[in-house]
Amino acid sequence: MTQVRYGIIGIGNMGAGHARSFQEGKIQGGVLTAVCDSMAAKRDCAREQLKDVQVFDSAEALLDSGLVDAVIVATPHFDHPGEAIRAFAKGVHVLIEKPAGVYVKQVREMNDAAAGSGKKFGIMYNQRTNPLYQKLRDLIASGELGEIRRTNWLITNWYRSQAYYDSGSWRATWGGEGGGVLINQCPHQLDLWQWTIGMMPTRIRAFCHFGKHRDIEVEDDVTAYAEYENGATGVFITTTGEAPGTNRFEVSGTRGKIVIEDDQMQFWRLRESETDFNARNKELFGRPECWKVDVPIHGRNTDHVGIIQNFTEAILHDKPLIAPGEEGIHGLAISNAMHLSTWLDGWVDLPLDESLHETELNKRIAGSRLKLTSVESKPADLTGTF
Amino acid sequence: MTQVRYGIIGIGNMGAGHARSFQEGKIQGGVLTAVCDSMAAKRDCAREQLKDVQVFDSAEALLDSGLVDAVIVATPHFDHPGEAIRAFAKGVHVLIEKPAGVYVKQVREMNDAAAGSGKKFGIMYNQRTNPLYQKLRDLIASGELGEIRRTNWLITNWYRSQAYYDSGSWRATWGGEGGGVLINQCPHQLDLWQWTIGMMPTRIRAFCHFGKHRDIEVEDDVTAYAEYENGATGVFITTTGEAPGTNRFEVSGTRGKIVIEDDQMQFWRLRESETDFNARNKELFGRPECWKVDVPIHGRNTDHVGIIQNFTEAILHDKPLIAPGEEGIHGLAISNAMHLSTWLDGWVDLPLDESLHETELNKRIAGSRLKLTSVESKPADLTGTF
Repeated sequence: MTQVRYGIIGIGNMGAGHARSFQEGKIQGGVLTAVCDSMAAKRDCAREQLKDVQVFDSAEALLDSGLVDAVIVATPHFDHPGEAIRAFAKGVHVLIEKPAGVYVKQVREMNDAAAGSGKKFGIMYNQRTNPLYQKLRDLIASGELGEIRRTNWLITNWYRSQAYYDSGSWRATWGGEGGGVLINQCPHQLDLWQWTIGMMPTRIRAFCHFGKHRDIEVEDDVTAYAEYENGATGVFITTTGEAPGTNRFEVSGTRGKIVIEDDQMQFWRLRESETDFNARNKELFGRPECWKVDVPIHGRNTDHVGIIQNFTEAILHDKPLIAPGEEGIHGLAISNAMHLSTWLDGWVDLPLDESLHETELNKRIAGSRLKLTSVESKPADLTGTF
Repeated sequence: MTQVRYGIIGIGNMGAGHARSFQEGKIQGGVLTAVCDSMAAKRDCAREQLKDVQVFDSAEALLDSGLVDAVIVATPHFDHPGEAIRAFAKGVHVLIEKPAGVYVKQVREMNDAAAGSGKKFGIMYNQRTNPLYQKLRDLIASGELGEIRRTNWLITNWYRSQAYYDSGSWRATWGGEGGGVLINQCPHQLDLWQWTIGMMPTRIRAFCHFGKHRDIEVEDDVTAYAEYENGATGVFITTTGEAPGTNRFEVSGTRGKIVIEDDQMQFWRLRESETDFNARNKELFGRPECWKVDVPIHGRNTDHVGIIQNFTEAILHDKPLIAPGEEGIHGLAISNAMHLSTWLDGWVDLPLDESLHETELNKRIAGSRLKLTSVESKPADLTGTF
């Protein structure tokens, strides 16, 4: 194979954006051959705008057409696992949009299907292509920060007004999205939170507020406290209700501290580890010598295109995936745990009790209201969002 | 009265520092006439170093001498309320070191005594003289930040090595201090956390870790989540175990965000309130216009000397106190609630159940170990600490 023939399942905001990337020739070794959507208006739009692309009204038809080697799944969140499982069954490689799904149990089934398929499986964790987070992960994995003691992510710059939520009746409902800021806006940070440090929390105590800032069913304000097996602790704070908001990720370890904020990394490195210093120090107010270090950051953030390119090269040349699809379960498990902790008003251990979470989620879905005011869904200008 | 005659009760690290301020003529309208300490070595040291100052072996003797109009109480934390109550009974003005005491119940008794005395009552919240926090309080009180939505204080730069804790057998024990980083290092931030925003939390869920980084009984690592009556939330994180640590206080409101870090204030102000913007906005990804504002900060941080000077002027000229002693109960109540929440592994409402807290604290005091290795207490170089 010298070229991967792609289909896109779901041509809403994200799917349409990926289609443009192909049509503009941004994916080397990849060509868009087919798309599908259940909405007639979107199919019409696709027929008008996409050159040399077959348009189908269902994923079944697209998969049965024999036109695709790989699909990008860009449907509503709930459907990601089901669509992926169907595609694997047809012997097609699968790149899913984030989140992996809405609850861990369905994502585990998808992961099992992927494992048994022999096909490539990726997830659109395009923030993993950001050189800052890659560097952070590298510094931690190589021991430059020592043992992790604390993580602190203040990610409150996901501002969304009521107009945003009113733009689709499925938005911010339990039945339509299965969650709010954790499911829709934060999957990247929830992934990076564990990917950069190489550790998952062992238990979580979270405080989600549902419909606090907006007229929505789901959470729009979250503070979560996490504990890790090595004794480290962490905090993750997010909201869609604040402006201008903050995006600041701090990780401290026995060899210093790294802060990523405003697209910059700051690294304070201890000359010797805090543990060693503490063991030998005799001065009452002694503290370890600390260096402010300038770390070179190379490369650029290739974003969505970078993930599709990498996925294409994984298929063509067996190149390692930046974001293996199986890893989508980690960030989702954290987000599920945050919901469950709030619902139970108590601790939630990880790995998660998946059945308990599913039961509790289903209660919310059963009680989900359909919005009385439904605005026709239309493609938005997604420039600058991800 | 044209000059206030001061006595200092307890001439350990802090008391000795205040004595030097008087002897160096830094307090206009105030003169040090007497000091007392129960330790002979400290009295000897005081006799050598302090000019024209009477040295007593007890607070009773000092108060009965008729040499003082006001006292500064700089004894171990547990004794602050008792010493203050005794001094009020003798008709003497009282300025206490922080914390106000170790548990709210004893501090309430002190406040009652102060109220009935007709004397001035102050507390050494010297961080209230920092123009940055004064400006923050001013901006919030005057409505420039709108309604408060979130507070976030990461105050992890209280590094203390094991050598510090080993320098006194009373240090970091339940019996000797009644707490750790919350009682000894953080009283200033716990005060400023509520003083700057003008709100106390209504409930707290805290996660204290006891002896996590050091061989001590009390907490050296704390993450606390707070909720306020208006729906705002807050997080307070502190430790003595990290280097270099962070001191970053962020407050966001409906009119923007203020961050104080590295002795600098940054103010992002919304042109219109987020609430108003949200009500009128029709754009899918619209967000309120935000201005980066340079706020002039005038004045200098007069610190301990500033508090003593202000207290002196309150006595002489009835000048308003920067830090009324009665307000010491607020920060302490927050700290007590953080302990109690951890001990009960659950929510703690404020105002605090003072008796429940006292009972739980007494359990820890009853089980307090005296350290096997007791190092002779000696004055330390406190330059740069507060």
